[in-house]
Amino acid sequence: MEKDDPQELESKFNSKTKAIILNTPHNPLGKVYNKEELQVISDLCIKYDTLCISDEVYEWLVYSGNKHLKIATFPGMWERTITIGSAGKTFSVTGWKLGWSIGPNHLIKHLQTVQQNTIYTCATPLQEALAQAFWIDIKRMDDPECYFNSLPKELEVKRDRMVRLLESVGLKPIVPDGGYFIIADVSLLDPDLSDMKNNEPYDYKFVKWMTKHKKLSAIPVSAFCNSETKSQFEKFVRFCFIKKDSTLDAAEEIIKAWSVQKS
Amino acid sequence: MEKDDPQELESKFNSKTKAIILNTPHNPLGKVYNKEELQVISDLCIKYDTLCISDEVYEWLVYSGNKHLKIATFPGMWERTITIGSAGKTFSVTGWKLGWSIGPNHLIKHLQTVQQNTIYTCATPLQEALAQAFWIDIKRMDDPECYFNSLPKELEVKRDRMVRLLESVGLKPIVPDGGYFIIADVSLLDPDLSDMKNNEPYDYKFVKWMTKHKKLSAIPVSAFCNSETKSQFEKFVRFCFIKKDSTLDAAEEIIKAWSVQKS
Repeated sequence: MEKDDPQELESKFNSKTKAIILNTPHNPLGKVYNKEELQVISDLCIKYDTLCISDEVYEWLVYSGNKHLKIATFPGMWERTITIGSAGKTFSVTGWKLGWSIGPNHLIKHLQTVQQNTIYTCATPLQEALAQAFWIDIKRMDDPECYFNSLPKELEVKRDRMVRLLESVGLKPIVPDGGYFIIADVSLLDPDLSDMKNNEPYDYKFVKWMTKHKKLSAIPVSAFCNSETKSQFEKFVRFCFIKKDSTLDAAEEIIKAWSVQKS
Repeated sequence: MEKDDPQELESKFNSKTKAIILNTPHNPLGKVYNKEELQVISDLCIKYDTLCISDEVYEWLVYSGNKHLKIATFPGMWERTITIGSAGKTFSVTGWKLGWSIGPNHLIKHLQTVQQNTIYTCATPLQEALAQAFWIDIKRMDDPECYFNSLPKELEVKRDRMVRLLESVGLKPIVPDGGYFIIADVSLLDPDLSDMKNNEPYDYKFVKWMTKHKKLSAIPVSAFCNSETKSQFEKFVRFCFIKKDSTLDAAEEIIKAWSVQKS
């Protein structure tokens, strides 16, 4: 996956930069930042005395040839980093709405104030279940049955299947290093969107059209973008591949039939 | 329990009043608003075209001689009322962090926007359990085993016990009509608070002192007040009586020993 340009990145920092948000593995791009890239980011955070809020919710969902690294482990970063994790993403229980933040006391104490005055507590029975799940899997980290190992193995097969499917109909998916999403430029499929509302970006119209006419859903990638970068991504949609095989079978049928119909 | 003064209440309304917050049964006072009082509030809401956010989380915890009424059922109120309920309070599962809002579509749709953009979803397995719990108890509303009936029965005994205990040591608890808290003026116990920080209201100091020296905890009532009314309540603390009998036994021992020690 493409590398960050260190010069371009540094141009975004200045003396007023209070904090950056890092996301690795990245949603929706699927990029996993490597050691050199994280070193560049660390150096900039230290040089500009910037906090780093590191969203690592897909930390265990990393595919062959890639390795997830925590920027908080880089020299000088622990005291300026808050690392965010997710029970939903780690144990495939997104409906539990549980997560955690890891960091030094001088940062976490402020998060505790916010927590106390907003959500107050998390659902305690689910916290107990999560603690048990960690307890079980941390004791068997070398076992292929450990969920941290078995889930990415299982998902890599689904990722590869989805990549092949999208390529087979002429699309160019960006193969993700991690996470459970694939983005692809879908403008080649070129459906007739003339009955969709005109005041929306292409990807919004495409996704609504596809949901309605093809019974297949995806997320418009420009939803993740600010106004400056929206136009670069509005031909892309995000497909999710953490699905039962029977659901992927159904998606395959829809996409193949669509492609045949077009040609 | 003391009645609202309709004139005083009306003096708080004017043409800019957008919404009021009603809480019945009331925390921390334990007041359950009766039909006449709610009619006064309804009339004012209609006269001043005001929304009513009605916090009724203790709706099932109402004791002999009192009846919980929903202000949304008063003529002209449905379309201007949002009624708030709580799984935690209804089924004694406060750790579940689940609740609901009931109201007309033109109000609820805005709450849905806020929900979508803040907490996004509630914990789905707990929602399912809550739905099942309602399903079971709604089908046996006339049965004493129905939790809506059995919980207030069980709590009324604990309330009466706590009232007698507080009275036995010379305090004057305000007997609650509903909810599971009792407030009482505790200044009669007159402990030596000279080792507590001085820049806090009396009730804060009292509660911290009691927690530390008597191993009994309570909540300072002035924490519920704005700066205008704080001084009227700073001699009061809130005791919670939804506790196991063994915990109430322990509280009784502490309070009785304290009283003997004083006299």
